Amino acid sequence: MQVTSLLRYSGVCPFLGHATAGSLRNLASTTTNHNVSSLTAKAMTCPMMGPKLAGMAAARSYASVAGSREVEEMHKKKNVPFNPASAEAAKCPHAKAAQDVATKAQRDAKASGVFDYQNFYETELEKKHKDKSYRYFNNINRLAAKFPVAHTSSTKDEVDVWCSNDYLGMSKNPVVLKTMKRTLDRYGAGAGGTRNIAGNGALHLSLEDELASLHRKQAALVFSSCYVANDACLATIGAKLPGCVIFSDSSNHASMIQGIRHSGAKKVIFKHNDMADLEAKLQALPKETPKIIAFESVYSMCGSVAPIETICDLADKYGAITFLDEVHAVGMYGPNGAGVAEHLDYEEHIATKESSDPVKGSVMDRIDIITGTLGKAYGVVGGYIAGSSDLVDVVRSYAPGFIFTTSLPPAVVAGAQASIAYQREFMGDRRLQQLNTREVKRQLNELDIPVVPNPSHIIPVLVGDAALAKEASDMLLAKHKIYVQSINYPTVAVGEERLRITPTPGHTTEQIAHLVSSIDAVFNKLNLKRIKDWKAAGGRVGVGMENAPKVEPVWKDQHLGLEDGSAPTMLAGGAQGVVRDEAVEVAQKRLTHLLGAEAGPALSISA
Amino acid sequence: MQVTSLLRYSGVCPFLGHATAGSLRNLASTTTNHNVSSLTAKAMTCPMMGPKLAGMAAARSYASVAGSREVEEMHKKKNVPFNPASAEAAKCPHAKAAQDVATKAQRDAKASGVFDYQNFYETELEKKHKDKSYRYFNNINRLAAKFPVAHTSSTKDEVDVWCSNDYLGMSKNPVVLKTMKRTLDRYGAGAGGTRNIAGNGALHLSLEDELASLHRKQAALVFSSCYVANDACLATIGAKLPGCVIFSDSSNHASMIQGIRHSGAKKVIFKHNDMADLEAKLQALPKETPKIIAFESVYSMCGSVAPIETICDLADKYGAITFLDEVHAVGMYGPNGAGVAEHLDYEEHIATKESSDPVKGSVMDRIDIITGTLGKAYGVVGGYIAGSSDLVDVVRSYAPGFIFTTSLPPAVVAGAQASIAYQREFMGDRRLQQLNTREVKRQLNELDIPVVPNPSHIIPVLVGDAALAKEASDMLLAKHKIYVQSINYPTVAVGEERLRITPTPGHTTEQIAHLVSSIDAVFNKLNLKRIKDWKAAGGRVGVGMENAPKVEPVWKDQHLGLEDGSAPTMLAGGAQGVVRDEAVEVAQKRLTHLLGAEAGPALSISA
Repeated sequence: MQVTSLLRYSGVCPFLGHATAGSLRNLASTTTNHNVSSLTAKAMTCPMMGPKLAGMAAARSYASVAGSREVEEMHKKKNVPFNPASAEAAKCPHAKAAQDVATKAQRDAKASGVFDYQNFYETELEKKHKDKSYRYFNNINRLAAKFPVAHTSSTKDEVDVWCSNDYLGMSKNPVVLKTMKRTLDRYGAGAGGTRNIAGNGALHLSLEDELASLHRKQAALVFSSCYVANDACLATIGAKLPGCVIFSDSSNHASMIQGIRHSGAKKVIFKHNDMADLEAKLQALPKETPKIIAFESVYSMCGSVAPIETICDLADKYGAITFLDEVHAVGMYGPNGAGVAEHLDYEEHIATKESSDPVKGSVMDRIDIITGTLGKAYGVVGGYIAGSSDLVDVVRSYAPGFIFTTSLPPAVVAGAQASIAYQREFMGDRRLQQLNTREVKRQLNELDIPVVPNPSHIIPVLVGDAALAKEASDMLLAKHKIYVQSINYPTVAVGEERLRITPTPGHTTEQIAHLVSSIDAVFNKLNLKRIKDWKAAGGRVGVGMENAPKVEPVWKDQHLGLEDGSAPTMLAGGAQGVVRDEAVEVAQKRLTHLLGAEAGPALSISA
Repeated sequence: MQVTSLLRYSGVCPFLGHATAGSLRNLASTTTNHNVSSLTAKAMTCPMMGPKLAGMAAARSYASVAGSREVEEMHKKKNVPFNPASAEAAKCPHAKAAQDVATKAQRDAKASGVFDYQNFYETELEKKHKDKSYRYFNNINRLAAKFPVAHTSSTKDEVDVWCSNDYLGMSKNPVVLKTMKRTLDRYGAGAGGTRNIAGNGALHLSLEDELASLHRKQAALVFSSCYVANDACLATIGAKLPGCVIFSDSSNHASMIQGIRHSGAKKVIFKHNDMADLEAKLQALPKETPKIIAFESVYSMCGSVAPIETICDLADKYGAITFLDEVHAVGMYGPNGAGVAEHLDYEEHIATKESSDPVKGSVMDRIDIITGTLGKAYGVVGGYIAGSSDLVDVVRSYAPGFIFTTSLPPAVVAGAQASIAYQREFMGDRRLQQLNTREVKRQLNELDIPVVPNPSHIIPVLVGDAALAKEASDMLLAKHKIYVQSINYPTVAVGEERLRITPTPGHTTEQIAHLVSSIDAVFNKLNLKRIKDWKAAGGRVGVGMENAPKVEPVWKDQHLGLEDGSAPTMLAGGAQGVVRDEAVEVAQKRLTHLLGAEAGPALSISA
């Protein structure tokens, strides 16, 4: 509740009416022991504000545990709901009034014989509470000047963020921020229309050129998000290809699952990364049947990596096209940051880095459709597909999710292009990200803390229980000032609940040490299973399993510069992340013809 | 093609290798008579660049007519394809190479017996060309400092934009830009995660509070776009309500159509705004069957407005809930800009403007689900739903399109909130928008130019032929420097093709005069039907129809301040739009607790 909103009421409220703006602000800046401001607490006793706040508290309960100091306390008393705002509201005499309205709606429905919608909503929510899949959003505000630190619901309460998908910290890279601010000044805030009506500008076309060239494809197309890109592309191509069958990895992301469902095409699920299973299923269909194999390069919840080349072989053999989601890999793998498909021909792509022609026969060249995001490693927002001109043009021409929506703001597409261009020129961030990943994995392993083994940049710390995973996450936040979201069913299987850690190049050795010791403390406090315990229990998802195959990281020592001594140095003390001037210059030049040459003090982040 | 990209090739290319950067830039800034730069034309003759550019030209052909001076010329020769880039590519000896690759793929497919994907893409595109629904995107870059002026593919070629959905010019409002820039500095470019994992911040919650309060509902939820909001909300609620039937207005937007399809619920289409038809169809179902009536307030392609109150009556009578899309109305109608539903109780909402409690029994209060956009009148990007806490929480908890996507950037949500807050405080923009709408409609009518009659801010100039509508649009752009997109089938019915004009408060009397005289000239040049011609032919969509009911605008004279003399003054000469300081202050204070107090020179748009 904002002071300004409350001030609106002060004229008509007998309680607040006598207060000065200053005293109200004062009340607003102090908090009660329920993590609401004193002003809100006071307002809840007011006959006008009370019901309103009760309604808001009910609506907002899901976010109310955000970073609060009481989380740990609440968890001690197991049966208390994690909902201080509701608790506060319950104390307010007017909260009951809001509940009464809902009850009356239900009574009315029953009396008149119409469907009881209110009861239906309550039942659906109750299901989520019962199976523990109801989500409480944490209130996390990542600070550009203090990356990877964020403040919580209180601006004074700061925590280290260890689970953001802003993997490289590009959201605070000066070239991105500067480009976005200059674009705001020149082209305004919004695009003002769909791509077909007033919302298609040179910046959109330029970003699509950049993406096509990054993936060495003929064309690319930008969407509101990669969720929309995956959904729209699969739904469109899958629906249009006559009799199409889509082969989908069992661990595929929700956006692909939705896209396949929306296509109406027949879906065949193959076991995660299981090539024998995929081949058996491909074999079962006639050669002339159109087929799409849809999969990801890096699976974000377990960090596994697809056998991309084998999938291409199978696609060739059985006449399928390949649809590869590189959402968690773009910016992160390959000498240009084009993803795992590029990384697999690391040397060849290095050798031809100055060209954007296809490297014929390379794994990336063999993929028909690559999709990616601008919102994770590139630090902005939006998604895209890349492929042949005709394929991209079919999606452009037929997908309602592309056609009938306002295009991304000029500043967003310009910022994204600057980010991509920067990462094409400078490998330091993704190398350091990998070195930090290795270091965190190493230190956790030394303490016998279980990490689901994988070759990527994801660190899934296995907990194996929904309530404990949430409790560990809450304890890390409240007690250790570390934010790592717990990942529970249905995102992962029951019994495989985890803490998903994502290091960035911006994390210092001190922050890494604090993370590891905090996790160790939480493991002790909650008596969570160590590797040895998993081993004794027969193991799970590669943890403590006798015959688990050895996992080799995608980034080899020589790629990281560990063999020739060119590897980046981990940050320590007050050291800030490296910003490579040459890469900034290249990124800025991309848009000089539209934004003009750089002028004035360039790249400092103003406070 | 950017100079910097070409420079990359200059080291290895025998043609460009001897050129200096200066001479290349010089080539890049001159254009050939095919609307490509001299540098690109030269590069197309290079054995390395040629094939690459040919591929790019093919991919980009759809955007190549953008603002070019040749459009008019091309249209004179009717059978020439509107595709200078392809024409250029065809002249290049290397374009054939790209075509050869495609041909080879088709030969291979045929030989091996697998499905011929390339042939399929070509066939699908050919269909679009054949039925004239293939879209060529114009390259339009709206300039914040010169609103409503944009540059085309050439930064020197400027045009008046008359078809943007940035209806109020909020995309260049200083409080929006300033808020976004300050947020970029403080919180960086991207949210870095989903709402559940690191991507939920105080700014997101604050925007949702603002939206809930705007619509006087308990809760609101923000999505990537309103396309996604409509799709996700209807798909989720429609799928979950047992045996749900969705009643859908025949003119509903694609996003609602998709949402209904994705819900799997039974769909019953009722005739556009036809209450007798709706009632007959509601009547046919048992009272206890859950029902959703899904409709819009302002239909954007014809400007018609739904009988919202009657729909609420029918919903009550037959036990349905109401889903109202106010996408083209938020910011534009009502004393707070909450939309047409608010406008219908104009006086009551004015009287209680300082409150955000429901106005009991008001039309807005009776709507169950309101959806809106942040990307049109509010000038940024994104969409939302507003309704009861439990309903919103069900969507929040179950809709994959909400759950599994990166949340909107902090700067976007902050800018949107500033925009909404500003428009809640200041009615001048939407009043002036309406006055300009009235004026354009009046002047067109005086010249016997047919406008589809409607009570809203949309001005659909009827052309009635796809080729002529496109030709009129192209001629306005190339000859008169006016950008109005033509709207053809499938967006409107065949025979009802139109130019869709959207005035803003930023258009001056001179720009209005230039628009009207230009349309008049184009009508003469292309011999388009005037009102009298439509009358003679029996009329169409309300134009020239004897018994067409008189249309009353939603904004009455007294709402506009025409009776008490408080109406805003139309802009003339070099006058800039009004920025109301008090509204700026209110908007800025919304986020002071997060962004800090305003400092330094506040609201000038830096050049």
